[in-house]
Amino acid sequence: MKTLAEAFHHTLQDIYFAENALTKALPNVAKAAGNPEFKALVLAHLAETKQQITILDKVFASIGQKAAGTKCDAIEGLIKETDSIIKDATGTALDVCLIAAAQAVEHYEIARYGALREWAKVLGHSEAHEMLGQILDMEKAANSKLTALAVSAVNVAKKAA
Amino acid sequence: MKTLAEAFHHTLQDIYFAENALTKALPNVAKAAGNPEFKALVLAHLAETKQQITILDKVFASIGQKAAGTKCDAIEGLIKETDSIIKDATGTALDVCLIAAAQAVEHYEIARYGALREWAKVLGHSEAHEMLGQILDMEKAANSKLTALAVSAVNVAKKAA
Repeated sequence: MKTLAEAFHHTLQDIYFAENALTKALPNVAKAAGNPEFKALVLAHLAETKQQITILDKVFASIGQKAAGTKCDAIEGLIKETDSIIKDATGTALDVCLIAAAQAVEHYEIARYGALREWAKVLGHSEAHEMLGQILDMEKAANSKLTALAVSAVNVAKKAA
Repeated sequence: MKTLAEAFHHTLQDIYFAENALTKALPNVAKAAGNPEFKALVLAHLAETKQQITILDKVFASIGQKAAGTKCDAIEGLIKETDSIIKDATGTALDVCLIAAAQAVEHYEIARYGALREWAKVLGHSEAHEMLGQILDMEKAANSKLTALAVSAVNVAKKAA
């Protein structure tokens, strides 16, 4: 990997792997969550993640590449962290930690799509630039909802303590 | 882990582990970086990370706990991703990917400190709340510098392609 075009293609494969891994991990998070609002948010984000994968398929097509994933260590670490929380926490600690872990995943995705969108622009991939911006906006909206929920959930947790 | 207080203590140990892991990983990133501005930024952030560990020592003390880390899978995944970039990329791809990976780490830390600061407030740990806010501001400033650098580096990469 030497050029910006190669870096773009590699990072696209990296986030494609990450989104696909999330479609497998999110059902477990929804199942474990106690807070009903959080559960609903996770299920809504699962549907959104599948939609984002369809958009990513089009991004690959727009640069003449086949959609494919490449192992992403970062998302695997983030998902492993979520699994540990499900294993080790109960009650209110489970909910606040799962919400915080979901925020960390959103932040990761925002960083990734921010870079990809910028690179697409510099590379002159205008269609890819637009589609990546569309996914970035979806991730930012999901993060805002999680942040609002985190504040309310933590106050519920305090009352329950 | 059942209560918000336990979740707070656990997550504090998690970020303590993460910051300590970064003090070991950042010198390799600085060594690999070709872009001199990025190299300088990484070295400055290494010094800042050590300062943040000292602040975290005080946060632990303020809640009557001993400073200690607990394995953080997320930061291990993020660092593993950085190591793969150093191994697999050269030239301009190396720089743009390393800068993007550093942004992902900053985003992770911003998510973590954002949650911890909020939890400290709800738990009535006013000293911890203030100190965690101080670290959060440092991470946000580091992220802004990286974002500005990312934009200039990617344009340099394009010209070199």
